Amino acid sequence: MAAESANREASRWLQVFGKALANHDIAGATLLFEKECYWRDLVSLTWTIKTFEGRDEVKAMLSATLSAAKPANVMQIGPATESNGAIEAWFAFETATGRGNGHLRLRNGKCWTMLTALQELKGFEEKAGRARERGVEQGVHPDRLSWAERRRLEQSKLGMERQPYVVIVGGGQSGLALAARLKRLQVPALVIEKNERAGDSWRKRYRSLVLHDPVWYDHMPYLPYPDHWPVFTPKDKMGDWLEMYARVMELDLWTSTKCLKAAYDEQAGEWTVQVNRGGELVELRPRHLVLATGMSGFPNVPDIPGAENFGGRIVHSSQFGGGEEWRGKHCVVLGANNSAHDIAADLWEHGAAEVTMVQRSSTVVVTSDALMEHAWGRLYSEEAVESGITTEIADLTVASVPFKLLPSFQKPTYDAIRKRDAKLYEGLEKVGFLFDFGEDGSGVHSTYLRRGAGYYIDVGASQLVVDGSIKLKSPAEIQKIATNSVLLSDDSVLPADLIVYATGYGSMNQWAAELISPEVAERVGKCWGVGSNTRYDPGPWVGELRNMWKPTQQPGLWFMGGNLMQARHYSLYLALQLKVRYEAIPATVYYVDPVHHP
Amino acid sequence: MAAESANREASRWLQVFGKALANHDIAGATLLFEKECYWRDLVSLTWTIKTFEGRDEVKAMLSATLSAAKPANVMQIGPATESNGAIEAWFAFETATGRGNGHLRLRNGKCWTMLTALQELKGFEEKAGRARERGVEQGVHPDRLSWAERRRLEQSKLGMERQPYVVIVGGGQSGLALAARLKRLQVPALVIEKNERAGDSWRKRYRSLVLHDPVWYDHMPYLPYPDHWPVFTPKDKMGDWLEMYARVMELDLWTSTKCLKAAYDEQAGEWTVQVNRGGELVELRPRHLVLATGMSGFPNVPDIPGAENFGGRIVHSSQFGGGEEWRGKHCVVLGANNSAHDIAADLWEHGAAEVTMVQRSSTVVVTSDALMEHAWGRLYSEEAVESGITTEIADLTVASVPFKLLPSFQKPTYDAIRKRDAKLYEGLEKVGFLFDFGEDGSGVHSTYLRRGAGYYIDVGASQLVVDGSIKLKSPAEIQKIATNSVLLSDDSVLPADLIVYATGYGSMNQWAAELISPEVAERVGKCWGVGSNTRYDPGPWVGELRNMWKPTQQPGLWFMGGNLMQARHYSLYLALQLKVRYEAIPATVYYVDPVHHP
Repeated sequence: MAAESANREASRWLQVFGKALANHDIAGATLLFEKECYWRDLVSLTWTIKTFEGRDEVKAMLSATLSAAKPANVMQIGPATESNGAIEAWFAFETATGRGNGHLRLRNGKCWTMLTALQELKGFEEKAGRARERGVEQGVHPDRLSWAERRRLEQSKLGMERQPYVVIVGGGQSGLALAARLKRLQVPALVIEKNERAGDSWRKRYRSLVLHDPVWYDHMPYLPYPDHWPVFTPKDKMGDWLEMYARVMELDLWTSTKCLKAAYDEQAGEWTVQVNRGGELVELRPRHLVLATGMSGFPNVPDIPGAENFGGRIVHSSQFGGGEEWRGKHCVVLGANNSAHDIAADLWEHGAAEVTMVQRSSTVVVTSDALMEHAWGRLYSEEAVESGITTEIADLTVASVPFKLLPSFQKPTYDAIRKRDAKLYEGLEKVGFLFDFGEDGSGVHSTYLRRGAGYYIDVGASQLVVDGSIKLKSPAEIQKIATNSVLLSDDSVLPADLIVYATGYGSMNQWAAELISPEVAERVGKCWGVGSNTRYDPGPWVGELRNMWKPTQQPGLWFMGGNLMQARHYSLYLALQLKVRYEAIPATVYYVDPVHHP
Repeated sequence: MAAESANREASRWLQVFGKALANHDIAGATLLFEKECYWRDLVSLTWTIKTFEGRDEVKAMLSATLSAAKPANVMQIGPATESNGAIEAWFAFETATGRGNGHLRLRNGKCWTMLTALQELKGFEEKAGRARERGVEQGVHPDRLSWAERRRLEQSKLGMERQPYVVIVGGGQSGLALAARLKRLQVPALVIEKNERAGDSWRKRYRSLVLHDPVWYDHMPYLPYPDHWPVFTPKDKMGDWLEMYARVMELDLWTSTKCLKAAYDEQAGEWTVQVNRGGELVELRPRHLVLATGMSGFPNVPDIPGAENFGGRIVHSSQFGGGEEWRGKHCVVLGANNSAHDIAADLWEHGAAEVTMVQRSSTVVVTSDALMEHAWGRLYSEEAVESGITTEIADLTVASVPFKLLPSFQKPTYDAIRKRDAKLYEGLEKVGFLFDFGEDGSGVHSTYLRRGAGYYIDVGASQLVVDGSIKLKSPAEIQKIATNSVLLSDDSVLPADLIVYATGYGSMNQWAAELISPEVAERVGKCWGVGSNTRYDPGPWVGELRNMWKPTQQPGLWFMGGNLMQARHYSLYLALQLKVRYEAIPATVYYVDPVHHP
C-alpha cells in the first residue's frame, strides 16, 4: 500500500515535471522543487558537474540550459521506494544530444534531491552487445589487414604520423579507465606512463599495500573482476590486472614515457606536449590534455632542521619499499593516516627493534569490517550483487546524494560504527591516539572528499597501537633530527635508523605547475575538496570536487583522478565531454568553478 | 494453461523419481523412463561421461551406482516448458559427494531424455562470491609474505621442490580452462606450453584466421569477454586474451617448455614427465597427466610421389604463414574444409596468380550467418543473453541432447539453412563443388563431433569458389608432383609454386604414442568420434566422444581438447574428477569405453 502510493506520487511528479520541461515552463518546473532542494547534474544539461542548491539556482540553470538541452521523455524506471520520509525513484530521460539516467527524492510532494546523469550520446552509442563489431569482414577483401597488423599499424602511427585527440598523462586506474571509455567512444587517445609497465604505479608502492576498499567497489569499466577475486586486492595483483586491462581493451599506451612539458597554443586550440619515450624525444599535439597523475600532487616533505645530517635514511611513504631491511632497527613514522599505519605495521611485522608513530593531529579511524557492515554493504557487496544492485546502480546511488547532505546521510552510520567498535576506540583513547569521525561526525567518505586524506581504514594496525607494539607519540612533531635520533616537540628523544614521512601529498594542480606552467596552475587553482570549511578544506562552499572531471579555467586541460570507484564512474562523464568536443557537437558549458587558492 | 499442466507433470515426475531413488527402488525408477530413453551422466553418478540408452542400461547403471552415489533432494528449478510434444524441465539434485544440475524431457508422462551433471563437491566448493578470500589477513602477522612474494615463492617451488598433482601438456584454451578450474578447486596443476607465450598456439596459425564460432560460444570459464568483444575473435586477439587469462587467473604455466617423454609408474601411481624448460631438463612427477595438445593429433601429410623434387614450397596448413609472399604465384590447396577455404581466400586476397582448391571429397558447407540465425542463436547470442540464458544454461542445454538424438534435433535446422542459402548452394553445385549436410543431413555440429573436421563455416570464400576467383578441381587428388607443377587424378596439370596440404590432423592419441609410448596409445585407442558409422567415424556406437574428459584405459592419463565451448564446459567435469582423486574422495568409475582402433 505504502509502496503503491509512493509509486503513484513519484510517477505523477515525474510526469508533471516532464511536461513542464517540455513546455519550457521554467517557473512551473522550479515550483515542483522544495525550497531546500538540490539538483546535481552530471554533464546532461550543463556540460559540467555541478550541484544546484535551492530554487533560485535551479531556476537560473534551467533558464540558461533548457533551450539547448531540450530534456524530454522523462520516464520512471522500476518502482519507487520510501524510506525516512522520502520517496525515491529512478528515471530515464533524453536530451537533444543524449540519453541519461536520473534519481529523484521527494519530500512532501516536492523534489528534495535530483540527479541527472548523461549516459550516452545519440548516434554515438558505444558499439557493444548487439552493436558490437563482427571482428571479421564477411566476404573477401584483397589486401585487408589482419587484426594484429591493423593494430600494430595504428599503434605505430598514433602520436607519430597521426595525432591523438587526447593525451592522458598517467596510466593508473584513472588514466586507463578514461582511455577505455574513449576507446569505446572511438576518440583517439594516447596514455603516457612513466613506468616500464602499466600497473607499476601500484607495484612500486610499499610491499604490504592492499586496497582498503572492497572488490565490489573497485571494478574497472566494462570488465569486472571474476567472482573469486579477493575482497581486498593486493597491490601487485592490482598492477597485473591493470596491465592486462590495457592490453585486452586495446588501449594505446606508451610506457617508459615521461611527460616533460606541455604548453597550450590558444590560437590553434591544441597542446604541444614534449615527452621522453624511452630516450626518444617526441612532440605530441593533442587538442586535450588530461592529467591523470593520481588524485594528489607531489609528496609533502617537511623541512625539519638537521635532516641533512641524519645518519640513517629518510624516506617519504611513497618511496618506502618494505620492512624487511629494518629488522632490529629503530624506526620513526611521522603521520597517522593510512600509509603511516600500513608502514608502521609492516616494520613491526618484520621485527624492527622499535616503531614509533608520531601523530601530529587527529585521524578518522574506522575498521574495514565496520565499513563493510555499515557503509559499503548496502551498495557494494555480495549481498548487493545478489539483490540486483549492479555496479552502475550503486555508483549512481552514491552520486545521487548532494555533497551538502552527505554529512547528515553519513552520520547515523558512524554513530553505529562508534558503538560497534567501542572497545577499539576505548583502547585508542587510553594510549592517547587522537581520533575523530570528521569534524561533523560524517566519517571517512566525507573526509576523503574534503581532503583526500586524514583517515585510517583499520585492517589491524590500530590494535598494534593499542597494545603498544607500535609506540605512539601524540600529539607531537619532530622538532629536530640528529645523526641517529629525533627530537620531538615534547623534548623527548627517539633513537632512529629510519624516518618515514607519511605526510601526504599536495594538490593535483602541482602537476599543472610542473608540467605546464605556474601560471596555468594559478589560473586553474586547487583541485579536490568541496569547500566544507573543515580542516584542510577551506570555503567558500562549491558543493563539488574542485576541477575534477569537468572543465577548468584552462581550456583543453582536464583533471582525472580518485579511487577505483571514482575512476570507473567519473571517467564516463569526462569521456562524454571529450566525445562531444571531438564530434563538434554543441555543448555549452554552463558554469566553471571560480578559481580557489587555499 | 498448457504451461501449468506441463509444470505439474514435470514436478510430479521429479517427485516420484526422487522418491524412487531415495527408496532404492531401481525397478520403480526405471519404469519412469520410456522404452526409448536416454540418460546422460556427467560424472555425477558414474564418475565418467556416459549416455545410457534404453531401460536396461539405465537399470544396470542405477543398480551399480545408487548405493554409493545416493542421489537425493531432486528439486525442479524454474517452470517447465513444452515444445514439440515434449515437456522440458531443469532440476537440482545432490549426491553423497556433491551437488548437480539436471535436465529432463518427458514424453507421454515418461522420461525420454535425462541429463545429470555434477556441478560442485560438498565441502570443496569453489571460493567465490561470498566465500571468496579476503586478500589480506586481518590483523598483523610477523613475517607474512605479500601476495607477490607468496606467488613468486609458489611458482619457484612448483615442479621443482613441490610436485604438481596434475601436469597439463598444452597451454591453449583447453589446458588453460582446466588449469583455471583446478586453481579454483585448489588442486596443484602445472601447464607445460612449448611456445614462448601463452596464446601462441593461436598467434602462430595462418594470419587471416578468425574464430568461426561467435563470441557468446567462446567465453572462457569465470571471466567472460567484455560486451564490445567482436563476434568473431581474430586469432592474435584470442592469443592475447589467453595470455592475459593465464596471468590474472594465476595459472601456473611454464612457457618455452617442451614435454619430451612421459612414463607411468604403476607401482607408485605417478608419472615421470621429462620436460625441456627453455634448455633446462626437468623431471616432473605428477599423479595425473592431461594431454591438452589440441583436439587433433599430428598434421596429416600425404605421401605424394615427386614431392621430394618439388621446386616450390610444400606446407601443411598448420605451417602456412600468410598469403603475402605468394603474390603473383601459382598456388594449389589440397583439401576443402575450413583451413583450405581460409587459406585459399587469403592467397587470392594477396594477389596470387592462381589459386586452385583440389577437393577430394564432399564438404559440409554452412554460412556463418545461417548458423547465427538458425543454430547458435537460440542459446548463444545477444538475444539469448537478454532473455536470461546464461552461458551455463546454454552449455547444459547443449549437453542435454543425447548424441543419438542429435541428428534428428539438428535436421530441421539444416533444412531451413538449405532454403535460406539456396542461391549459394546452387552456385556451388554449378561449379562442381561437392557439398552435403552430413550423411544424415544433421549438419556441421554432428560432423564436428564425429570427425572433428569435414566442414567449412563460410565467411566468404564459398562465393570466391562460385565466381571462379578460387579455381576448383573436384573430385580430385594430386597424383604426382613435378618440379613446378602438380599432376591431378584427372590427368590435368596445374603450374605450382606453392602446395598447401589442408589435409587435417590425426587422432589425439598420436600424442600419447609420441610422448608416452605406442603401447599406451594402443591401450587407450582412438580419441574423439562417437561411432556413428558415418565416414571417418566407424562403429561400434559409443554415444559419447571417445576418451575425452573422462577416464581412459590408462590410469592417470586424460585427454582434454575441443573448441572454446567444450574447453569451457567439459573442463568442469575433468576438474571435478581430478579433485575427487586429489582429496581421496571415493569415486568409483562405473564404466570405461572399450578400446577402439579404426
